[in-house]
Amino acid sequence: MAKIGFIGTGIMGLPMAKNLQSAGHHLYFSRLHKAVPEELIGKQGTVLDTPREVSKATDFIITMVPDTHHVEDVLFSETGVATGLSRGKTVIDMSSISPTATKAFAERINIMECDYLDAPVSGGEVGAKSAALTIMVGGPEDAFKQALPLFEVMGKNITRVGENGDGQTCKVANQIIVALNIEAVSEALVFASKAGANPHKVREALMGGFAASKILEVHGQRMLDRTFDPGFRIGLHQKDLNLALATGREINAPLPNTATAQELFTSCAAHGLKDSDHSAMVQALESMADHPLIPNQTP
Amino acid sequence: MAKIGFIGTGIMGLPMAKNLQSAGHHLYFSRLHKAVPEELIGKQGTVLDTPREVSKATDFIITMVPDTHHVEDVLFSETGVATGLSRGKTVIDMSSISPTATKAFAERINIMECDYLDAPVSGGEVGAKSAALTIMVGGPEDAFKQALPLFEVMGKNITRVGENGDGQTCKVANQIIVALNIEAVSEALVFASKAGANPHKVREALMGGFAASKILEVHGQRMLDRTFDPGFRIGLHQKDLNLALATGREINAPLPNTATAQELFTSCAAHGLKDSDHSAMVQALESMADHPLIPNQTP
Repeated sequence: MAKIGFIGTGIMGLPMAKNLQSAGHHLYFSRLHKAVPEELIGKQGTVLDTPREVSKATDFIITMVPDTHHVEDVLFSETGVATGLSRGKTVIDMSSISPTATKAFAERINIMECDYLDAPVSGGEVGAKSAALTIMVGGPEDAFKQALPLFEVMGKNITRVGENGDGQTCKVANQIIVALNIEAVSEALVFASKAGANPHKVREALMGGFAASKILEVHGQRMLDRTFDPGFRIGLHQKDLNLALATGREINAPLPNTATAQELFTSCAAHGLKDSDHSAMVQALESMADHPLIPNQTP
Repeated sequence: MAKIGFIGTGIMGLPMAKNLQSAGHHLYFSRLHKAVPEELIGKQGTVLDTPREVSKATDFIITMVPDTHHVEDVLFSETGVATGLSRGKTVIDMSSISPTATKAFAERINIMECDYLDAPVSGGEVGAKSAALTIMVGGPEDAFKQALPLFEVMGKNITRVGENGDGQTCKVANQIIVALNIEAVSEALVFASKAGANPHKVREALMGGFAASKILEVHGQRMLDRTFDPGFRIGLHQKDLNLALATGREINAPLPNTATAQELFTSCAAHGLKDSDHSAMVQALESMADHPLIPNQTP
């Protein structure tokens, strides 16, 4: 059983940490940034003062925090993870952050003769709880193999995409496609409904052909059922598309439809939908067309 | 066995007509607009002078022509199908045309106590040859049931979506989603590749999660393999998106990302790709990013 540091025990981190404890691992937390949930503390969970102490006490240090600057802070501040590292330890960042910043972070960790893995996830809180996360990993093959048993406790569909940064790049690509497929289904269903067709029937007919997608299946159904409890919140998807667009600008990769999708999410936020499921993007198209997808359900 | 009129024996119509003949039906063609392929004429194929004569000789009249004005011409010109109709016959338009025009055509046919079915297809020449077309039908339930045995000879995934026009609306919705999913995969793979990741690995990792789609599977692979033989031609998809955007304007349904996708197809056409498969849309994104998806393969 491994000694694992785990920093970031929020909506995603909490169930992931629990799954590691259930598999028999002892976890070390830091009280510096945020209180650690009681349920994680005890026989298999120890709370220390700072990320530095967590880093000293463990072999693998997992971070699961909201954004790029949080990772930078946890790793490289005065009492950060980096200050407690010694040769042979592995830092595993499972947050969804900038691919280019990730490459720089990895270099700074490698200088200390430690490995770095970027390992962002998709699948949301449901996937975290049921240990069914998709995990996209960037980093050295050997470090990946050593960490694989830990990943297998938290997820199901685990791929080593390539070197450091490539895991984060893959996650951004995932969020681009998911947003644009939601937008595509929204345009198509609102168009069809306003043209007079039954959108339930249209979705059914399209599921058999080239328009078929996981999003048409799952999010298309949510749009028709008007079930917009998250799921994955619009506010979080805005953060991820911001990452896509900011990185796109850094590397000169234009993302025309991602930019529009982001503005549609912003319109959703303007109408109080920031905490709704991202399938609620359909409401931006309904507003624009002044047409509810389902009769008698105002957009 | 039914007596079937079949007008429009081009790339799609030819194999569809052959499948009807193989199932034992006798087909009647018109020489007015275009010469009928020799292979259709003989024991099960008779050529008459005009659509009017075809209409007189048969119980079902199928049209499979390029665009809205061709259907209008074949049905309602001086020697058109409508002039040869008598009570109880069924007009089946399998072309992909305007949903709003279709509703008007159906009304004019209904006045003559005949049924009208709009039954556009997807699946391309390959689907037509292998009798595996998806057929999206709008029109009365009874007429649909009577025509179903004919559809089953030409296709596999056959849905009655609703009343007249709804079949065409469903086809437009299909073409919107297909174009936007191709655009989504193009943005994501070019972004990932330019950020330094291997796009083959990225596609593989994404296939397991919410980004999964028929387009990521089939067209994503074509982008990576650089196999842009059609398939479905960009020129035809431009026609279909034009239908989407024109109908969207008629009914006031804004289609922001469809509009951008159409412009990207136009950029492809500017670079000589009008006859390439629609997955070649990726080349527009590669050009914009000045980055080939696969190293040493110029965009």
